[in-house]
Amino acid sequence: MSTTQSTRLDEFQAYRARMNDRISQIDHLGIKRFFNLDTNAYHDAALPGKTKELLGLVASMVLRCNDCIDYHVLQCVDAGWSDAELYEAFNVALVVGGSIVIPHLRHAVETLDLYRLNHLKELAVE
Amino acid sequence: MSTTQSTRLDEFQAYRARMNDRISQIDHLGIKRFFNLDTNAYHDAALPGKTKELLGLVASMVLRCNDCIDYHVLQCVDAGWSDAELYEAFNVALVVGGSIVIPHLRHAVETLDLYRLNHLKELAVE
Amino acid sequence: MSTTQSTRLDEFQAYRARMNDRISQIDHLGIKRFFNLDTNAYHDAALPGKTKELLGLVASMVLRCNDCIDYHVLQCVDAGWSDAELYEAFNVALVVGGSIVIPHLRHAVETLDLYRLNHLKELAVE
Amino acid sequence: MSTTQSTRLDEFQAYRARMNDRISQIDHLGIKRFFNLDTNAYHDAALPGKTKELLGLVASMVLRCNDCIDYHVLQCVDAGWSDAELYEAFNVALVVGGSIVIPHLRHAVETLDLYRLNHLKELAVE
Amino acid sequence: MSTTQSTRLDEFQAYRARMNDRISQIDHLGIKRFFNLDTNAYHDAALPGKTKELLGLVASMVLRCNDCIDYHVLQCVDAGWSDAELYEAFNVALVVGGSIVIPHLRHAVETLDLYRLNHLKELAVE
Amino acid sequence: MSTTQSTRLDEFQAYRARMNDRISQIDHLGIKRFFNLDTNAYHDAALPGKTKELLGLVASMVLRCNDCIDYHVLQCVDAGWSDAELYEAFNVALVVGGSIVIPHLRHAVETLDLYRLNHLKELAVE
Repeated sequence: MSTTQSTRLDEFQAYRARMNDRISQIDHLGIKRFFNLDTNAYHDAALPGKTKELLGLVASMVLRCNDCIDYHVLQCVDAGWSDAELYEAFNVALVVGGSIVIPHLRHAVETLDLYRLNHLKELAVE
Repeated sequence: MSTTQSTRLDEFQAYRARMNDRISQIDHLGIKRFFNLDTNAYHDAALPGKTKELLGLVASMVLRCNDCIDYHVLQCVDAGWSDAELYEAFNVALVVGGSIVIPHLRHAVETLDLYRLNHLKELAVE
Repeated sequence: MSTTQSTRLDEFQAYRARMNDRISQIDHLGIKRFFNLDTNAYHDAALPGKTKELLGLVASMVLRCNDCIDYHVLQCVDAGWSDAELYEAFNVALVVGGSIVIPHLRHAVETLDLYRLNHLKELAVE
Repeated sequence: MSTTQSTRLDEFQAYRARMNDRISQIDHLGIKRFFNLDTNAYHDAALPGKTKELLGLVASMVLRCNDCIDYHVLQCVDAGWSDAELYEAFNVALVVGGSIVIPHLRHAVETLDLYRLNHLKELAVE
Repeated sequence: MSTTQSTRLDEFQAYRARMNDRISQIDHLGIKRFFNLDTNAYHDAALPGKTKELLGLVASMVLRCNDCIDYHVLQCVDAGWSDAELYEAFNVALVVGGSIVIPHLRHAVETLDLYRLNHLKELAVE
Repeated sequence: MSTTQSTRLDEFQAYRARMNDRISQIDHLGIKRFFNLDTNAYHDAALPGKTKELLGLVASMVLRCNDCIDYHVLQCVDAGWSDAELYEAFNVALVVGGSIVIPHLRHAVETLDLYRLNHLKELAVE
């Protein structure tokens, strides 16, 4: 895969960070509380955060939101899920959501590959 | 909770079994294969079936399908998830899907209570 | 199937007719025009009405609306589609929309059976 | 309209209150905070609560959730919106969401009629 | 914000105008009537057009359509809604639709900023 | 229309082919079977494949998935549907799905134009 493709993830992360800053600057109490609630939902509790990240990923896939898929794929990799485990989660999303999920499956697989590649590049640089 | 309420689950399970039989009798190859695929998606593999049942439950909640919620709540209880763990999954679904999920959260909580109650009654009878 | 079940369709049709009358009585120009547009969309044109009823049915199934499914199953039967053809359309909806469509597949199959049964009863009476 | 129909709203309100109590009793911090956030979103602020109830109603209609529609129709009537104004909001929801919204338009109109009727009955009793 | 970003809105408006012309040229009676119905739904009536634009914006956000969000944000600004009022509408959409709406909240906030910036630039040129 | 625009379809087809290869290489039994099921759903059976492609197109439009729309528009053209017939299917999708479908109607019309243009260019070259 080319360097150009690899930056799709970087661009998403930069845009996400920039706009989250902008939204935080708006300082709307309800919106701020929602963002906190969203963050807290994935913290360790009766269910470990790792499991809840996987729940968030499948929810994002069946609701067909590529930005949410990108975010949760990265979180799931960081939480320690293997490719084989993530493919299993992709399959559940595909069966529940149907062929309309296929374009988002392509996106999820590409994001996973790009993120693993980024890690390999970082290791090579070190 | 009254005995009348308790039968909502029984009625759902009877209707589901009866119509699945009817659909199986139609003998459409594509539909039959889809049902197999659906069943297999929740078998133990790189992810345990127990984890995948929880994924199916959250997917059902954010897609707001009460029948699917009933089915997966029962599967999740049978797979050994505790109430505290299921509430955590409900919370992820609520945050991802928003207040439009609340009526389905009510439904999920009621189904969970009814199913636990059924088990208690069975124990009392034995 | 029992007589009690058979009246689910009758009740839906009576409710639909009663509320459509009530909505028509409200006399909101935009709403009235929308209802006209909706009716006209299924008239013979470059595509025959019969084909468009099948499109409406599949759209209703992937959008998971039981009332819309009931309406279009009846229209499709009246337009002359056979059970085998309708099962094919159900299968497309199932594959596109995924397992979340299954409860609506059950509903569609039951509605089709009830409507065919109603016709048989009418023939028996004549 | 019969007394029997009139109780559909009463039953919904009783069920909603009972299950909200049950959910509150579960005492899950995330879920409780979400319910607070949801309530606060409709309080007077830069936009009056009355306007935001109408926004909640249209959101509920295009997302096709009858329980949410019932809740927001009641809130909108209590906030002082007239029938003519609510029909206008229904029309926006219908145009944005399409004919798949029609069954929910029927439900919304019926709920509005039932709630107005309840008020008339209360006045007659006084 | 850079000039490059500012043209995202210009490109959307140019594409929208060009394709609406192309669709109008197709001259399909049903499609033309739908476009008229859509336009008329936001005209002053029992509810002022300004209020209905806000309803259209929230409907677009919970249905998660960026093009529709762009269109309605522009209409809402032109109708005279302030940023503070629009943030309130964004918050209702976020609470109703959940975290899956967040990417569209980012988009809506960016569009609002870009459109306000365009107005400032035009004033500076005059 | 410019050559640059014409390549949007080429890029989609290349990306789709590349990622489908990558997904096939993952070799997940469930995912592979789903892809087979999806392909088979559009083969000639009690309904001709041509009719089912049109069903798939309308389902893709009301579910608002541009990649799925692109795929099915191409399949529908290859299956022999005329522009006039496809406009009729677009109209059904628009009426069922509402104005939220309009951005996808623009996309579908542009894809259809681009694909017809590609065919004309190929004829001119021969």
